[in-house]
Amino acid sequence: MNTLIRIVGTLIILNGLLSGAASAEDGYDLWLRYQPLPDTEREILTHNATALITPENPSATTQVAINEMQRAFHGFTGNHLPITSEITQGTILIGTPDSSTAIARLALPFGSIGKEGFLLRSMEINGFKTTVIAANTDLGLLYGTFEFLRQVQTKQDLSLLDIISAPDIQLRVLNHWDNLDRSVERGYAGQSIWDWWRLPTVTEPRYQDYARANASLGINGTVLNNVNAQPEVLLPRYIAKTAALADIFRPYGIRVFLSVRFSSPIEIGGLDTADPLNPEVQQWWKDKADEIYRHIPDFGGFLVKANSEGQPGPQDYDRTHVDGANMLAAALEPHDGTVMWRAFVYSEHNPVDRAKQAYDQFKPLDGDFADNVLVQVKNGAIDFQPREPFHPMFGTMPNTPLMMEFQITQEYLGFSTHLVYLGALYEEVLKADTYVQGKGSTVARVIDGSLHGYKQTGIAGVANIGVDRDWSGSIFNQADWYAFGRLAWNPDLDARDIAEEWLKMTFSTDPEFVQTAADMMMRSREAVVDYMTPLGLAHLMDTGHHYGPGPWVSELARPEWNPVYYHRADSEGIGFDRTPTGSNAVEQYAEPLAQHFSDLDTIDDKDLLWFHHLPWDYQMKSGKTLWNELVSRYDRGIEEVESMQAIWESLRPYVDQQRFERTADLLEVQLEEANWWRNASITYFQNVNGLELPEGIEAPPYSLEHYKSLSFPYAPGI
Amino acid sequence: MNTLIRIVGTLIILNGLLSGAASAEDGYDLWLRYQPLPDTEREILTHNATALITPENPSATTQVAINEMQRAFHGFTGNHLPITSEITQGTILIGTPDSSTAIARLALPFGSIGKEGFLLRSMEINGFKTTVIAANTDLGLLYGTFEFLRQVQTKQDLSLLDIISAPDIQLRVLNHWDNLDRSVERGYAGQSIWDWWRLPTVTEPRYQDYARANASLGINGTVLNNVNAQPEVLLPRYIAKTAALADIFRPYGIRVFLSVRFSSPIEIGGLDTADPLNPEVQQWWKDKADEIYRHIPDFGGFLVKANSEGQPGPQDYDRTHVDGANMLAAALEPHDGTVMWRAFVYSEHNPVDRAKQAYDQFKPLDGDFADNVLVQVKNGAIDFQPREPFHPMFGTMPNTPLMMEFQITQEYLGFSTHLVYLGALYEEVLKADTYVQGKGSTVARVIDGSLHGYKQTGIAGVANIGVDRDWSGSIFNQADWYAFGRLAWNPDLDARDIAEEWLKMTFSTDPEFVQTAADMMMRSREAVVDYMTPLGLAHLMDTGHHYGPGPWVSELARPEWNPVYYHRADSEGIGFDRTPTGSNAVEQYAEPLAQHFSDLDTIDDKDLLWFHHLPWDYQMKSGKTLWNELVSRYDRGIEEVESMQAIWESLRPYVDQQRFERTADLLEVQLEEANWWRNASITYFQNVNGLELPEGIEAPPYSLEHYKSLSFPYAPGI
Repeated sequence: MNTLIRIVGTLIILNGLLSGAASAEDGYDLWLRYQPLPDTEREILTHNATALITPENPSATTQVAINEMQRAFHGFTGNHLPITSEITQGTILIGTPDSSTAIARLALPFGSIGKEGFLLRSMEINGFKTTVIAANTDLGLLYGTFEFLRQVQTKQDLSLLDIISAPDIQLRVLNHWDNLDRSVERGYAGQSIWDWWRLPTVTEPRYQDYARANASLGINGTVLNNVNAQPEVLLPRYIAKTAALADIFRPYGIRVFLSVRFSSPIEIGGLDTADPLNPEVQQWWKDKADEIYRHIPDFGGFLVKANSEGQPGPQDYDRTHVDGANMLAAALEPHDGTVMWRAFVYSEHNPVDRAKQAYDQFKPLDGDFADNVLVQVKNGAIDFQPREPFHPMFGTMPNTPLMMEFQITQEYLGFSTHLVYLGALYEEVLKADTYVQGKGSTVARVIDGSLHGYKQTGIAGVANIGVDRDWSGSIFNQADWYAFGRLAWNPDLDARDIAEEWLKMTFSTDPEFVQTAADMMMRSREAVVDYMTPLGLAHLMDTGHHYGPGPWVSELARPEWNPVYYHRADSEGIGFDRTPTGSNAVEQYAEPLAQHFSDLDTIDDKDLLWFHHLPWDYQMKSGKTLWNELVSRYDRGIEEVESMQAIWESLRPYVDQQRFERTADLLEVQLEEANWWRNASITYFQNVNGLELPEGIEAPPYSLEHYKSLSFPYAPGI
Repeated sequence: MNTLIRIVGTLIILNGLLSGAASAEDGYDLWLRYQPLPDTEREILTHNATALITPENPSATTQVAINEMQRAFHGFTGNHLPITSEITQGTILIGTPDSSTAIARLALPFGSIGKEGFLLRSMEINGFKTTVIAANTDLGLLYGTFEFLRQVQTKQDLSLLDIISAPDIQLRVLNHWDNLDRSVERGYAGQSIWDWWRLPTVTEPRYQDYARANASLGINGTVLNNVNAQPEVLLPRYIAKTAALADIFRPYGIRVFLSVRFSSPIEIGGLDTADPLNPEVQQWWKDKADEIYRHIPDFGGFLVKANSEGQPGPQDYDRTHVDGANMLAAALEPHDGTVMWRAFVYSEHNPVDRAKQAYDQFKPLDGDFADNVLVQVKNGAIDFQPREPFHPMFGTMPNTPLMMEFQITQEYLGFSTHLVYLGALYEEVLKADTYVQGKGSTVARVIDGSLHGYKQTGIAGVANIGVDRDWSGSIFNQADWYAFGRLAWNPDLDARDIAEEWLKMTFSTDPEFVQTAADMMMRSREAVVDYMTPLGLAHLMDTGHHYGPGPWVSELARPEWNPVYYHRADSEGIGFDRTPTGSNAVEQYAEPLAQHFSDLDTIDDKDLLWFHHLPWDYQMKSGKTLWNELVSRYDRGIEEVESMQAIWESLRPYVDQQRFERTADLLEVQLEEANWWRNASITYFQNVNGLELPEGIEAPPYSLEHYKSLSFPYAPGI
C-alpha cells in the first residue's frame, strides 16, 4: 500500500509538471476533480466499491454513468474499478428494474422517484454489504451515479447511504446568450464554447465535459443561442450544427433548445410577414419544426424573446403574446416540443412604471396559452439587479405555468471579476412568500407547480459559461452554476449547504476551510448590494456595459434605460414611490405583502427605496438619517470586500497556489471597483443633495466630472 | 529502474485520466511537450545530464533557462536535475564569461556569437565529459538551453554537440492583430490571448507559456495590438496593462511594441491635428513615449499602418510617409525605440495596378527615413495570397532597412481549418532571387541586411495565436508559428528540415512517421494554391471573410477589392497583364527577372496569370489549353487533399487519439471546402468563357447562382 501511496504522490507532482503549470489546478475540472483521496478515505472507498455490477447491454446513458464511475474511482484511488456480474462484499449494483434482474428483485420504492429520480442505498444483499444505485430510467441511474460520487467527494458515510431523490422541477435548463459569431451577450468568461464555424464536422472535447458537468447537477436542457436570436440559426446548415451538439448531449439526458427570432419567416423564409395568424407563416413554422425534428428527434423546443427591447413579435401585427406563442406551440406540439415565452417586456411608449408592465401585459392572458407553453419570468420585475423584490407575476397566473429565469452570469454584478455568490440571491427569491394562497405560498412553490398544480414546470439560468479555461471567469463563479443546478433540482435547498458542498468538491473538505469560505460566500452577495445599490436602489449602472457606476446617466433615448429613472434623487430626497401615492406597483403583490411594502413601519430597509421616495433626512430604523445610512451602506460594502480579502488570505494553507492567487487578484480588482462605486455614487448624490458627508467619513478623491469622464468602449459582453 | 518505468508508465495513463480527457494531448504544450523518453534515450540523457552548474546569482533570464531545463528533465525522466557547483561526469555547465568563472576559463569563440547567440558543445573538462551552454548574455543562455532541449527532443547525439548559432536578423517579432475588445482581425483560433479587461491586476499562466514558446524559437519582440490600432491603447490605463505583460515577457528576452493610430493626438490627446510637422503634435508623441518608457524601460517601439485602407496618416496633412515615420522615430529615439512603418499602401483613387503602388510610393523615399525606422513590407505586392511573386520593393531600397511581414494566420488560406504548411511559402519567398546585385541577391539577404549593409534588420509574422486550447486552431498550424520563428533566426533554413524538426518535437521521432508527415506538409501548400488560386491567379476570395470563393465579386466600392480586378477573365481570356503591354509591373523587378516574367517562354506556370492575360486556348507547356490546364489544377488540388487524408490515416499508429481525430476532422472539412472552391471557380469561369469541360472531368453539382447565394455573416476574424 505504501508503494502505491508514494506512486500516487509522485504522480500528482508530475501531473502538474508534465502538463505545464497551466493545467495543474486551472479550474477546468470544475467540481468533478476526483483527486486522489488521503489514505483513510481511499480505504473506505475501496472497501465500499470493490466492483461494479451493471446492466448487460448498457444504453449510451448507462455507459456514461459507468465511465464516470470508473474515471472517478481511478482518480480517487489510482486503481481500476472492475465490472463484475456477481454480488460480493462492497459491490456497487447499478440498474433499472428493466435492465437489471438483480435490481428488479429488490423491493425498492420505484413509484416515488418518477422518470428522473433515483435511489442510492447501502443494502445487504445475500449477506454482502452493497451499494445500490437504482432508478426507473437510465438517466436516473446517471443522476444517481453523480450523487454517489458527490457523497464520496463530500466525505459522507458510504456504508450508510439512504438517499431517495427526484427533481421538483421538470425543465432545468441553461440559457446561453451566445451569438453565432461566438460573442456572448453579457458573457464575461470568453467566447461561446460553441464553435459554430467548425461544427458539425469538428467537435470539441469540451462539449462532453459540459454535458458531464450539467448532468452532475441534473440540468436536462440547454438553449444554445441568444434570446436576441439571429434568424440564421434555423438554416439547414445550423440545424446540422445543432444536431451534432444534440448527439453529444443526448446520452447525458440534455436536450437542446434554440432561441428563435419571431420574424424568421421573413428573413430566411422569404415570406413578407411573420403574422402568427397568417396560414403561410404557421405552415412555415410547422415545416421548420418538422425539419428540425428529422435531425434532432428529441429537440426541446423554442425560447422566444418577442416584442421586447426591439425584438420583433406578434404585436407588430396587432396580435398578442398568446397568438405568437400558441402558433409556435402548434408547430412543436406533434413532436412534444415546448415553447418558453419570455415575459421580459416593457415599452418606451408606455409611461407606466417599468416594474409594472410585464404583469400588466401578461396577467390578462392567464389561461390562454397552449399546454406546451411556459412563460419565462425573470426573478425580479426590472432586470437582474443585485437585489430586487421577487417578480409580482409569480403567484398571479395560476393557469399558466411560469418558469423562473435566473441570471448566472453577472451583468449588473461586476462581471466575472467580482466574487458574488448568487446562491444567496436565488434562495432569497425562491423562499420569498407571495402570500397568494396564504402564508407559505413561496415563489419556489409557484415554479415547482405545487401551488397552482402546473402540469409543466421549468427553471432557466442565463449561463456564465465561456471558453475561459475555468469556464466561468473565476473559480468562485463556478459556484453559481453549481447552485443554480442544485436549486433547479430542489428549490428548497439552502444556499449555504450548497456552498459548503461545492467548496468540499472544489477545494477541500477541511471543516475549518469549508466553514470560513462558506461564510465569505454567503456575505458576498450583501456586499455587492451595499457597494452598488444599497437600500433598495437599482439600475445605477453606466450605459451599455452595465458595469461601473453611472447614477448620473439621464440622456438615453428610452427613459427607463436611465439610472435617474430608477433612483429619482433630487435635492429633496431619493427613491421610487411605488406605493399608492406613486406608481402603485405594490398593488401587483398579494396582501399582506402589498401593505407590508407600502408601510414604512414594516418594510425592510433592503427594499426601502425600491418602493418609497423619501427625504434625505428621513429617520431610519438605525436612528441615522437616510443620507447617513446610505453613505454607511456604501462603506459597509467596502469593509465587507476588505473582510473577504482577509478571509481568503487566511485560507491560503488550504488552497493550491494557482487558484489561490487568481482569487486573490480578483478580490483586489473587486476592492478597487467597490471603492470606485462607493466614491462615484456618493459624489453624485452629494452633487444632487448638497449635503455634507457624515462626520468621520472619508471624502471621495475625485470630482463628479472625473467619474463621468470614465468610459469603457471595449468592455466585454456587450 | 524497472519500477521507475512502470511508475512513469502508470503516470502517463493517470495523467490523462486525472486531468480529464481534454488536457491529455490537447496541443497546449506545443513543441515543448517534454514527454517521458523511452528507456534507451532516457539513459543517454541521464548519462549526459547528471547535474547543472549555473551562475551563482542567476538573473531572471538565467533562472528561466534553469527552470526550463529542470522542467524538461523532469518530464523526460521523471527525475529532478540537481544543481551542483563541481564539474563531474555528465555535468551541464551554463553561463556567460561574466557570470561564470568556469565558462570564462574555457577558450570559446565568444566573438562570433554576438549578443543573442550561443555555443552548445560537448567538451571534456578536467577529464570529465560535460556539456557547455555558453553565451555573451543571459538571453543567449536561454536560447542555448532551448537548443539543447531541441537536441534531446529530436534525438541528436548528446555526446557530440558542437553548435554555434546566432540570429541573422535582429528584430524577430510577432504582430498580433488583436483588438482591445479581444476580437482578433483575421484571427481564427479564438479570442485574443490578452485579457485586456482584467489586466494589469489579473494575469494568465498562458502569458508565461506564450513567452516560453517564443523564446524557444528566438522570437524577441511582440506587437500586442492590431495594426488597425485603437487610440485608447495609449491611455495610461492601457500602458499599465501593457507594462504588466512586458514585466512577464522581460525575462524571456521579449520586448513589447504597440501599434499606434496616427491620429491619436486628436482622439486621446485633445489636439485638433495630427500633422507630423506640427510642434504640438511632435511634443505630444515625445511626451507619450516618455510616459511609456517610464513604465516599460525596454519598450520596443511603434508599428504603424498609416494612409492605408482608411487609416489616418501623414498624407492627410499633405505630408509624406517619411514625415510621419520620422516624427515618431524622434519621439522614440532617446529611448532606443524603433518605428516599424508599414508599406502596405494602395489607394482607390489611384488607377495604377495595385501591385505597383507601394513600390511607387516608397522607392523615392529611400534613404530619407530616420535611423530607427524600418519599413515593413508584406512578402508579396498584393496581400498574403496562397502564392504571390516576392514584393518588388525587396532589393530596391538599399538605404532603407526593409523588414519582412509574413502571415502566420490564414486569411485567404482557408482559415485555421485548412492544413497549409506555410514554411514552404516562407522558404519560397526568402530564397527568391531579386538579382539586384546579380545572382544570389535573395530576399533573405535583403532582410538579413547582408545585401545592402542595413544597420537594422527585422522580420515580422502576423500571429495565428488565440485562446483556443491548441493556441493556433489546429496542431498543424503550430508548425507555421514554429517555422516563422526558426526562419526569423536563420532565413536560410530549409522548410522541410524545419517541418521534420517540428514533427519530432510535436508528435514522434519515428523516421517513418516524420518522413511521411513531412511529405504531406510540404505538399500542402501547393494543394491550396491549386484548389484556390492556380497558375498565378490571386484574390478570388469572397467579400469580407476572404474565406470561400467569390471570383464573381465585382460590386465593391474600391475596384481593387473585387476579385474581377485581379483575374480579368472574360470570354476571350484570363489573367492580369503586368508586362509592358499592360501595367508593366514587371519593370519594378531587376533584370533578368523582369524579362523572365515578361517572356512567355521563360515564365513559370505558377506565375503565369499574375503577369499575363492570355486567351483561354493558349497552349501551355503541358500541351493543354490554358482552360484545360486551369481545370486540371483545380482537380489536382482536390486530389492532393484526398492524398493528405490518406497519408494522415496511414499515420494513425503514431499519433494519440485526440490529435489524430482532430486533424482527420479538419482534413474532412478541408476536402469539402476544396471541392467547393473547385466547383464554384469552374462554374464561374465556364459562365464567363462558355467553354465545355475537358473530357472526363466531373461537372460541378450546382449552378453559379447557388455558389453566389452562399453567405457567411458570422465568419470569424473579420
